Amino acid sequence: MRLLEETIERIKPSDRETMKTAKEKIDNLTKPIGSLGELENIAIKISGITGRIENHIYKKNIIIMCADNGVVEEGVSACPKDLTATVTNNFTKNITGVGVLGAFTNTALTVVDIGVDSDSLNSSVINRKIAYGTQNMAMGPAMSREEAIRAIEVGIEMVDSLVSDGVDLIGTGEMGVGNTTTSIAVLSALTGIDPSILCGKGSGLTDIQFEKKKETIKKSIDLNKPDQEDIIDVISKVGGFDIAGLCGCFLGAAKNRVPIVIDGIISSIAALCAKRISGDIVDYTFTSHLSAEPGAKYILDELGFTAMLNLNMRLGEGSGCPLAFNIIEASLFTMQNMGTFEDANIVNDFLVDIRE
Amino acid sequence: MRLLEETIERIKPSDRETMKTAKEKIDNLTKPIGSLGELENIAIKISGITGRIENHIYKKNIIIMCADNGVVEEGVSACPKDLTATVTNNFTKNITGVGVLGAFTNTALTVVDIGVDSDSLNSSVINRKIAYGTQNMAMGPAMSREEAIRAIEVGIEMVDSLVSDGVDLIGTGEMGVGNTTTSIAVLSALTGIDPSILCGKGSGLTDIQFEKKKETIKKSIDLNKPDQEDIIDVISKVGGFDIAGLCGCFLGAAKNRVPIVIDGIISSIAALCAKRISGDIVDYTFTSHLSAEPGAKYILDELGFTAMLNLNMRLGEGSGCPLAFNIIEASLFTMQNMGTFEDANIVNDFLVDIRE
Repeated sequence: MRLLEETIERIKPSDRETMKTAKEKIDNLTKPIGSLGELENIAIKISGITGRIENHIYKKNIIIMCADNGVVEEGVSACPKDLTATVTNNFTKNITGVGVLGAFTNTALTVVDIGVDSDSLNSSVINRKIAYGTQNMAMGPAMSREEAIRAIEVGIEMVDSLVSDGVDLIGTGEMGVGNTTTSIAVLSALTGIDPSILCGKGSGLTDIQFEKKKETIKKSIDLNKPDQEDIIDVISKVGGFDIAGLCGCFLGAAKNRVPIVIDGIISSIAALCAKRISGDIVDYTFTSHLSAEPGAKYILDELGFTAMLNLNMRLGEGSGCPLAFNIIEASLFTMQNMGTFEDANIVNDFLVDIRE
Repeated sequence: MRLLEETIERIKPSDRETMKTAKEKIDNLTKPIGSLGELENIAIKISGITGRIENHIYKKNIIIMCADNGVVEEGVSACPKDLTATVTNNFTKNITGVGVLGAFTNTALTVVDIGVDSDSLNSSVINRKIAYGTQNMAMGPAMSREEAIRAIEVGIEMVDSLVSDGVDLIGTGEMGVGNTTTSIAVLSALTGIDPSILCGKGSGLTDIQFEKKKETIKKSIDLNKPDQEDIIDVISKVGGFDIAGLCGCFLGAAKNRVPIVIDGIISSIAALCAKRISGDIVDYTFTSHLSAEPGAKYILDELGFTAMLNLNMRLGEGSGCPLAFNIIEASLFTMQNMGTFEDANIVNDFLVDIRE
């Protein structure tokens, strides 16, 4: 609890003065003001995060929180439960989508067992197991309040450790059969929106399974009565260790003043939890792509983010992060290397908009 | 005319058999089928283009067609006309948005003077000047039919030359004060949709200039009566040398079986012209981002494309291409390097969808 409290205390808004100076610099580059759109906003936001006008990314890492969910007993998933352990191991073998996209963009992975129901994980998986999966939230709370706090702190610790190792751009991913069910339960509890509006069918569920999933979420919320105003209560009653761990990552990144990227619906919901705990985390958080899950837009609306990519990806794992990293790096490179109006021999006044 | 006719004759659909084989290979990679979304579609489309399952990009180039437009006499642009020449020269100095984003992604530029109203362009600008800008389309045809054909052929020649030099991924950009006016005129003539629906204000125009722009487009179409069924007639009457040249690029890329990327509204409209000339060009064409211009969605709908990026960019120049190139290369790398279900120790049947 001390780490969480200390972390919350140390989170501050990003540096508005540096952002202002960065914007002034960008507005003097040889292009109509604002015409590089989000590329400009990204560079300005990163200036606010680091407090520097010129920024480079030296070391990128994606934290993948892996955990099992007791609620799969209810038949809410089309996948067998042991897929969580199998895929967790596969992350260390560089054969998964996120691993290969990571390799393409020179990004390392940090694979964390925060609650996988298995003792046969590879040694390169970091063992921070809180329990062998959560309890079935349709029968009672998914975890204790202490476990939820501990899981959040694992996320903070992972970020602290990466940052002390020189990582300056962090991505978020997860693996856990059943974790869209828990995520949508958390989202529904936080927003008060009915699960049937937020919940996507995915391609793997039959109609019967889909109904079961929505019913189970509703039942779990009705049974556990999570307190909308108490995020830890919500996570502990209807969440998962992966969501809690990722929530901690967003808090940790904000504390350490390092940019962090959302990827997919579970990570988005973890970011929303973090934002409800400390609003300033939005200053440090970016999002890669828009999830196809119906609930995704409610989250981005509250966070105030625009998704960079429109690639209809739905693999999860953090697989959108490497591509977002690339765009962030392109943004920083561009803003540092473009010429000014003076270099370009252009009188600024005319260049309100170069496109007529 | 011979080059254009020969080119049209040699354009064939991409290789559906290889696409089928590529899809089979991709469907056996360790992920739910289709879960990498557009990344999968891109890799499959490129297999169809090259006829190979495994593809690498070795040499990337963005062709930037630069030309002046006589219609600026009507006061349709907020920029002074000589900005076309200034920015054309700046493309060769690596200080522009497209140049810097190109440098970030190891992409060269081919800057073509296809009709700039200036004799003082840098020697590294390729001189294929058809004329010193077009005629004012509000007073008569922008160019002769012969000039339109010649400009299209310049585009084909540029692609032929790059491909013989080993370029295997092409981008498209343009520079020309007044070219959103001509582009929207072409789009309106091709679709029959009223210019006021298609035309965006941009940030530089006053309300009066915006009205003037829409009126001028309408007047030019009414006066010149372009034949909707005759693309060359449309381009010659209300188009520009840049649009014609880019139209030739899309035809040339399809003939040479090389992927080519649309960027921005002018390039999109040039691709639409090429598609109306030879429908098969869509098999070779990709699009980077969705333009903010209201007309953009009509074009992507007809072409059947999804924009990869959601970055609210409106610089033009081809500046979205380098980021799209990166995504294309990520797609090819991923599909070649991910493990199969066998590598992943997963029984395929369960993996209809890994996310529950």
